[in-house]
Amino acid sequence: MIAEIVAVGTELLLGQITNRNAATIGAALAETGFDVHHSVIVGDNLGRLATVLTTAVARADAVIVTGGIGPTQDDLTREAICQAFDLDMKFSDEYATALRTRWESLGREMPESNYRQAEYPDGAEMLPNPKGTAPGLILVVENTPIFVLPGVPEEMAFLLRREVIPRLLAGRGEDSVVHSRVLRSWGRSEAQVGELLDDLYRGKTNPSIAFLASKGEIKVRITAKARDRQTAEAMIEPVDAEVRRRLGNSVFGRDDETVSAIIARNLVERSWTIGTAESATGGLVAAELSSLPGSSAYFRGAVVAYTPDLKDSLLGVDADAQVSEETALLMAAGARKTLSVDVAIAVVGSAGPEPLEQPVGTMIVAVATPEGEQAHTLRLPGDRERVRIYATTGALQLARLGIEGRWWAPGV
Amino acid sequence: MIAEIVAVGTELLLGQITNRNAATIGAALAETGFDVHHSVIVGDNLGRLATVLTTAVARADAVIVTGGIGPTQDDLTREAICQAFDLDMKFSDEYATALRTRWESLGREMPESNYRQAEYPDGAEMLPNPKGTAPGLILVVENTPIFVLPGVPEEMAFLLRREVIPRLLAGRGEDSVVHSRVLRSWGRSEAQVGELLDDLYRGKTNPSIAFLASKGEIKVRITAKARDRQTAEAMIEPVDAEVRRRLGNSVFGRDDETVSAIIARNLVERSWTIGTAESATGGLVAAELSSLPGSSAYFRGAVVAYTPDLKDSLLGVDADAQVSEETALLMAAGARKTLSVDVAIAVVGSAGPEPLEQPVGTMIVAVATPEGEQAHTLRLPGDRERVRIYATTGALQLARLGIEGRWWAPGV
Repeated sequence: MIAEIVAVGTELLLGQITNRNAATIGAALAETGFDVHHSVIVGDNLGRLATVLTTAVARADAVIVTGGIGPTQDDLTREAICQAFDLDMKFSDEYATALRTRWESLGREMPESNYRQAEYPDGAEMLPNPKGTAPGLILVVENTPIFVLPGVPEEMAFLLRREVIPRLLAGRGEDSVVHSRVLRSWGRSEAQVGELLDDLYRGKTNPSIAFLASKGEIKVRITAKARDRQTAEAMIEPVDAEVRRRLGNSVFGRDDETVSAIIARNLVERSWTIGTAESATGGLVAAELSSLPGSSAYFRGAVVAYTPDLKDSLLGVDADAQVSEETALLMAAGARKTLSVDVAIAVVGSAGPEPLEQPVGTMIVAVATPEGEQAHTLRLPGDRERVRIYATTGALQLARLGIEGRWWAPGV
Repeated sequence: MIAEIVAVGTELLLGQITNRNAATIGAALAETGFDVHHSVIVGDNLGRLATVLTTAVARADAVIVTGGIGPTQDDLTREAICQAFDLDMKFSDEYATALRTRWESLGREMPESNYRQAEYPDGAEMLPNPKGTAPGLILVVENTPIFVLPGVPEEMAFLLRREVIPRLLAGRGEDSVVHSRVLRSWGRSEAQVGELLDDLYRGKTNPSIAFLASKGEIKVRITAKARDRQTAEAMIEPVDAEVRRRLGNSVFGRDDETVSAIIARNLVERSWTIGTAESATGGLVAAELSSLPGSSAYFRGAVVAYTPDLKDSLLGVDADAQVSEETALLMAAGARKTLSVDVAIAVVGSAGPEPLEQPVGTMIVAVATPEGEQAHTLRLPGDRERVRIYATTGALQLARLGIEGRWWAPGV
C-alpha cells in the first residue's frame, strides 16, 4: 500500500519554515505498513494545489494533506478539493456554533474569518480538533481516502494519531508491516561505520540497513517487512546484535533513546544529581538535561558563566584562567560545589566566529562525578550554531560515559 | 523560470530527519527569481530516484538535487543520474588523490569507501566541497541544468551559495526578481492579524501578502515581483508601512531580525548587560541570548535554579516561594545582583506534563531593568517542549519591550 504526503504552503516552498509535518507523517505511516514514494510540497495556489491532489489520488492508495485550512485567506485546501474533484462547498452550522462557543468560553469574541473553518467539501467528514480551531477532514475519492490535517504541527500530530492512523490500520487488512529500529552511535565517522557494516548492507534486503549522520551522532537504521510487528522485531534482533558487536561501545542507544534519556536513567539508578557550568554553550547543555518530563528528579541547575568574573564569583575559578582542559575541570569541580550536585558537566571553548584563545571550533568538555573526572578537547567544524550543538552532544556523551564509569578513550 | 527541488533519502520519507535542505534551497531560489512549483522527497531507491529526476528535468528549467552522494552504499544519486539519462560513470583520479591527501593531512587513513565520491556521470563537472568529502556535481541534460549537492546541511548550503546561485543568476538573463520581506509580530493571534490585513490580502497581487505562525510569532510576508531587487524593495515599502500602521507595536522586526538580535542592539546602544534566572525553561533563554556572534558584549551569564534550594542560595529567593509573579520578580532582582547585570529575565512555571502548583502551561516571566520591572503570566497550550519554546519567545519579547521602556500591556 502506497501513501502520498502533500504539504501545502508557499512559506514551505520559499523556505520560511521547514516541513516538519512531512517527517511526522512519514514516521507514522511507516509504522502502519504504508510505503511513501512521494512527499510533495505545493504552494498556496488554487490551480496547482488542485492538480497535485488529482495526481496524488491517481497514484497512491491514501493521501495525507497538511496545511491550508487555517482562518486566513491564503488557506485554500478546502477550495482546491472542491475544484479537483468537482464537489460543492458546504457549511456546517453545527461546527460554526461550536467554534463560537469555544471562543466565548475563553472570554473572547470570535474573529469573523474563523467561520471559514466551518466550510467543507460535500461528502467530507469533519474531524474535531480540540487543540485548535481548524477541524480536519476526511473524504474518499475514487476509492482513495484523503485526510486533510491542519498545518500547525501540534494539531496535525494530534489528529494524525487520533484519526488517521487508526483508520488506515483498520482499512489495511492483511498487508505487511514495515518496522524500523535505529541504533544510535557516537565517536566514529559515518564512513567508518559504513565500512564496518558494508557486508551487512550489501547482503541484506530484509531486514535492510541504512546510515544517517545527525548532530554528531551516526544512526544505523534496521528495517524489516513482515506480517506483524512481533515478527519484524524478531527479524531485526540478530542484525541488531551483529551491528552492536561490530560498532562496540560507540552504540549508546536505540530509537528515541536520546543521550539525555540515558543519562537520566543512569542518574536515577545511582540516585545522583547533575548540573552544568557552561560558557560557550550558553545553557544548551542545561536545557537538554531539563528537556525530559520528570527531570527535576536529577537535574538541579546550572551556572552559565559567560564572563570571566562570573567564573570566579560563582564557580571559584580564577578570572585569568585560560580556555583549557584544566579550566574546564576546575569549572566542573566548582559546579559540583555551587550547585550541590554529584555530577557536573563543564564546557568552555571558542564557538566563533572570532577565536577565543583557541582556534574556532575548539570546545573543551569536562565531567566530574563522585568517582572521577575527565576533560576532553573536541575540534569541531562548522559555524557558531553547529559548533555549539555538536559540543552539546559531545558534552552529554562524555557525561554518559563518565557516569557509567567508562571514561572516554579514542576509538571508544 | 521554474525550479524543482529533489531531496533524496529514505530517512526523509520515514521521518527520521526533517527536510531542512528544501527550506534552505527554496529561500535561495526565491531570491534569484526562480519559482518553485514542486519540492519532492524520494527514497534511496535507484529506479524511483531515476524516475523522479526524469520528471523534474521534463517540467522544470533547473533542478536542485540534495543528498545521496555520501560515501555509504545507500548513496545512489550518481548511479540514478547515469540510469535516468543513459550516461556512463567516470572516475576522477585527480579528485581521488585530493581526497586521500586531505585525509592524510588530518593524520588519518581514508576509508576505502570514500573513493566512491570520486565517481561522476559522464559530462558532469565536479564542484569542490571544502567542508566535506563529497563534491557537488553539475550537468546539463536537455538544456536543463541539474545541480547535485550533499545532504549534510552545512555542506549543501555552502555549495548552494558558492556554486549554484551565481550560475543560476548568470543564466537567468532578463527575467524578473521575486523579493520578499517578512514583518515579524508578537502579541496578536493569527486570525486577528489576518482580519486587520484582510483588504490588503484581497486587493494586492503584486506585492502580495501572506501569513505564517511560528513559535508564538505571527509573520506577515510581503512579496513583490519586479525587474530588479531595488524596484521590488520600492514596491514593498508602502505595503510595509501600511501593515505596521495597522498592527502597531506588535510588529517588532523584519526578515531575520530575531527578538534576540533586537535585544542585542538595544542593549549595546544603552551599554547595558543582561542575564537570566531560569527554572522551567532550564537555560533556553540564556542559550538564545548567547546564540549571536559577539554576544559577550552584553550577555554575562545565567543561573538555572531548577530546585528550590538553589533559588535560595544563588538568587536569594526563599525556597518556599510559590510559582507566582512575585517569585519571578524576586528571581529577576536576585539575578541582577548575583550576575551583576543591568537587565535580568526570570522564568518560572509549570511546563508539564505534571502540574507544578499552577496548571500545566502556566509560565511566569519577569523582567527587571535599571528603569523598572514587570511580571506577566503566559498561559500556553501544547506539550512540554512547545510550552518551553513559547515561554522562551514570550520572555524575550517582554524583555525587548522592557528594555525599550515600553512595558507590555494587553493588545500591545
